[in-house]
Amino acid sequence: MGSSAEDSSRTVWRNADAVCFDVDSTVCQDEGIDELAKFCGRYNEVSKLTKEAMTGKLEFKEALRQRLGIIRPSLNQMRDLIRTRPPKLTPGVRELVAELQHRKIPVYLISGGFRGLVGPVALELNIPLQNIYANRLKFFLNGDYAGFDEEEPTCRSGGKGEVIRFLKAKNDYSNVVLIGDGATDLEACPPADAFIGFGGNVIREEVRAKAKWYVTDFQELIDALD
Amino acid sequence: MGSSAEDSSRTVWRNADAVCFDVDSTVCQDEGIDELAKFCGRYNEVSKLTKEAMTGKLEFKEALRQRLGIIRPSLNQMRDLIRTRPPKLTPGVRELVAELQHRKIPVYLISGGFRGLVGPVALELNIPLQNIYANRLKFFLNGDYAGFDEEEPTCRSGGKGEVIRFLKAKNDYSNVVLIGDGATDLEACPPADAFIGFGGNVIREEVRAKAKWYVTDFQELIDALD
Ligand SMILES: [Mg+2]
Ligand SMILES: [Mg+2]
Repeated sequence: MGSSAEDSSRTVWRNADAVCFDVDSTVCQDEGIDELAKFCGRYNEVSKLTKEAMTGKLEFKEALRQRLGIIRPSLNQMRDLIRTRPPKLTPGVRELVAELQHRKIPVYLISGGFRGLVGPVALELNIPLQNIYANRLKFFLNGDYAGFDEEEPTCRSGGKGEVIRFLKAKNDYSNVVLIGDGATDLEACPPADAFIGFGGNVIREEVRAKAKWYVTDFQELIDALD
Repeated sequence: MGSSAEDSSRTVWRNADAVCFDVDSTVCQDEGIDELAKFCGRYNEVSKLTKEAMTGKLEFKEALRQRLGIIRPSLNQMRDLIRTRPPKLTPGVRELVAELQHRKIPVYLISGGFRGLVGPVALELNIPLQNIYANRLKFFLNGDYAGFDEEEPTCRSGGKGEVIRFLKAKNDYSNVVLIGDGATDLEACPPADAFIGFGGNVIREEVRAKAKWYVTDFQELIDALD
């Protein structure tokens, strides 16, 4: 705390030209894939794999494939989940995003979860849908689960970094901040210019140990903007 | 005509323990993918590729990928097509299939087209849906086209032969007849024990030239059962 490493992150934050948020356990209090697994009656089988993926023990795409292979969510299950479970936003995130938007700083959601579940989050926060980078589920004509889009960078280890590199090249950003709780967020800096670890929902020890700047309340980030 | 090669095919036909039909331009008068392309306003771009695929000039899976990449059928377009266009059965096929079923000979539909379009054909002919082997389209949650199931043997060159080999191994068939109009049908014999070329909708010269037995009316096949 108060290290020069943290100071340099704070400088990037005050000068951010784009802010990218992780979604699960960062913008939202829960993990989308766990909610989906619960909804489909497959939580116990899936939660162990989720934890391994979070801590980086299992290659991300393979972990995703295995978990989805257990859940096998149908088109109707996805639609029902979206319709019946509104996003559980983390306290303070609405105010933080509004403050960034007030300052005309673009906000992105970069998630290893599913676009169908992130869409309602973006709508709640007035984030344009084209600022979402997330995985896309596929379905057959009869609604059966048919896999996921393996071309999306977010389904790969290192994918969040790929998205940030793309955004920087496309928009000429030089101060991109990524805020997240997990190992896949931490590893995306660089190319992110600063990473802020977020422990307001769950604290991952590896992330807390390695993050140059770690917060547990979004209010700290609003205060640090000036 | 009347050759000993045709005679041996006729013997297999009289002793058939399973009959597999191609669907497009065989059981049905039209080509499903062309109907889909018309329905989606992409016929002109697609028809040339279809002809090349039929005559074997372009690898089947690649041709399918290219044509679908042009059509990009949405979930709603597929549903609308299925709802508004009943199958155009070839004259005589209903009677032929009924006669085979009367004799307790199982009937299969093996199509390089799409399961969603073959399903209504099977229903019309009282063929169980599990006797369909065809390609499966994929869609994203929002209904956008998301590719096809590349694991289905029917999307590959040689795939119809794979299906027939699988059916023979599973059911211990020794006299499997395949009836079809195209090059992908012709090439599936062997493993099919006999191939009957069908020219009642369209005559493909290469197939007519190479088929040991070639008919243009399903009544010929009913007559040849006894
Ligand atoms: Mg997270
Ligand atoms: Mg055909």
